[in-house]
Amino acid sequence: MLETMRWLPGENCLELLDQTRLPSEVAFIKCRSYRDVAAAIKKLAVRGAPAIGAAAAYGLVLAAQEAAACSYKEMIKSLETAAGELKSTRPTAVNLSWALERMLGRLREAASRDLALLGGLLLEEAHAIYNEDLAGNRKMGEYGQVLIPPKASILTHCNAGALATAGYGTALGVIRAAKEAGKEISVFADETRPLLQGARLTAWEMLQDSIPVTLITDSMVGYLMAKGKVDLVIVGADRITANGDVANKIGTYGVAVLARTHGLPFYVAAPVSTVDLSLDSGDKIPIEEREQNEITHLAGCQVAPAGVQVWNPAFDVTPNHLVTAIITERGIIRPPYQENLRKTIGQDN
Amino acid sequence: MLETMRWLPGENCLELLDQTRLPSEVAFIKCRSYRDVAAAIKKLAVRGAPAIGAAAAYGLVLAAQEAAACSYKEMIKSLETAAGELKSTRPTAVNLSWALERMLGRLREAASRDLALLGGLLLEEAHAIYNEDLAGNRKMGEYGQVLIPPKASILTHCNAGALATAGYGTALGVIRAAKEAGKEISVFADETRPLLQGARLTAWEMLQDSIPVTLITDSMVGYLMAKGKVDLVIVGADRITANGDVANKIGTYGVAVLARTHGLPFYVAAPVSTVDLSLDSGDKIPIEEREQNEITHLAGCQVAPAGVQVWNPAFDVTPNHLVTAIITERGIIRPPYQENLRKTIGQDN
Repeated sequence: MLETMRWLPGENCLELLDQTRLPSEVAFIKCRSYRDVAAAIKKLAVRGAPAIGAAAAYGLVLAAQEAAACSYKEMIKSLETAAGELKSTRPTAVNLSWALERMLGRLREAASRDLALLGGLLLEEAHAIYNEDLAGNRKMGEYGQVLIPPKASILTHCNAGALATAGYGTALGVIRAAKEAGKEISVFADETRPLLQGARLTAWEMLQDSIPVTLITDSMVGYLMAKGKVDLVIVGADRITANGDVANKIGTYGVAVLARTHGLPFYVAAPVSTVDLSLDSGDKIPIEEREQNEITHLAGCQVAPAGVQVWNPAFDVTPNHLVTAIITERGIIRPPYQENLRKTIGQDN
Repeated sequence: MLETMRWLPGENCLELLDQTRLPSEVAFIKCRSYRDVAAAIKKLAVRGAPAIGAAAAYGLVLAAQEAAACSYKEMIKSLETAAGELKSTRPTAVNLSWALERMLGRLREAASRDLALLGGLLLEEAHAIYNEDLAGNRKMGEYGQVLIPPKASILTHCNAGALATAGYGTALGVIRAAKEAGKEISVFADETRPLLQGARLTAWEMLQDSIPVTLITDSMVGYLMAKGKVDLVIVGADRITANGDVANKIGTYGVAVLARTHGLPFYVAAPVSTVDLSLDSGDKIPIEEREQNEITHLAGCQVAPAGVQVWNPAFDVTPNHLVTAIITERGIIRPPYQENLRKTIGQDN
């Protein structure tokens, strides 16, 4: 499996797999400044809540290299500015600000204020974020696969796979772990308009791992369930609030309603860094709205008539009562989420 | 508004607006044989249940012109063969077989068996089907617009407009009539993957009529409703069974579930020719499955990885309990549909 991102020590830069060009082309972007990273996040060359968190962390390593700081204080100020820019690229996924805050915290608590050492310290922390994400996904897979029957047809929305994380994936990590446990797994990937992460990325990841995958349009989910073709749903998350409401890729809410209507379990797999206990409920989550031409154009061709208005929210919110369980690297969390989220992860989030 | 189809008496042929090329290009197809009509229906140059019914009727006029029949009996046989071919193009919309049966019936009951007169008879019947559809849509609009509040935001799926009929439209006809009645109407059109009839056709029709229209992806319907941005749903239908189950463009069922979840009325507008009292319930309706590349390719570009499996049903079935009312040219039909459909239209369907 290709890596989503890679720090190149020889060149002191961050290499990103350009996900906008998959699956037709495997191309890489070298980010030599934090602004390169910000631009890559903004155009979705790297996407997925955990992946943009890790990429932003490396962005701050680059910012430290760039900073013309003469003192520890100046360095902190420079990195706070860079963190602000990186954070503003995408408002919904909380992992972005979580990773940036963790990096700034490491800097603020540094034992030595020797400027020559701070770069190494930040790189170490970025690597830690990356590696913990990867290990966390394996753990999530272990816990989560227990929920999957020996033979299961699983629907997933968008891409919560290796490409959305440091590797292995959250929702797709659980699917991979179920397969590794010897279960007979098949996957339905909905294409996930407008940017087709399901068609382009999830279908591609599943094919790479030889997990049987069938592609459908987003509008087919209801009929798929009505025909009894799917046993359960697993998706990722961009932010989970204290009450268990889940922001995730636009369309997730509709899938959750349909799962409930058909009596199917609806699981959310996400690292604890996705949980935002500072927000009571999902209506407080800022929802990114993106450009019109993501909808009016397909593959560069205009499909909608000129002059049409467009509404393009990139995420929606699934209320906690539709979520059967939340799978994290610390175990499976069940309702009542208000209580159980805080119990499992309240100590440090 | 452009006409969906037009009989050209000078050339004795059927001219169809090529809907596959809208909205970027306004082009026409001249059908000089019934096989041209069958091909146009198959590739969706003409689509929408009432429109393909009318087009197929004109197809039989062409078949009669082509037939090398020496007797009335031979003519009937020729036209039955042609009707079989036309009918096989698309299995779900019942209007197709309804129109073909009506044409064959006219032939079978002809007062004169003079071959020279039969062509004119068939053309007269095709014109009648076309004109009745147009008049029926106006009537449907009159009845249906009463259901629309003075100020309403309406969601529609696919295109049940002028382009799907002889003119004016079914679902969009009701919307037009509400506007003509002085109501303050705005429309949300979901794009309707895979073939984008919402983005390409509904948005275009609404813009032509200066009715405010906002385009969304299919996956945004749930969030749109959760945000309180829509008051009611109106869609068309391809077949309605005796119990009120409704086959319509894939995705309709999901919209209906979401409408119910949010307490919104879900209306179906369709002529009585769409009602098939010979089928008890929606699970008996044949559902067309179409080619993979409608999903794997966008505007000619491959977006999904090679080798991925695809499921591409073109329609789904919405169970009667999710349908608030069925709007027809004979009035509004409410549950229980089993009883009320038969009462209103049982005498001749």
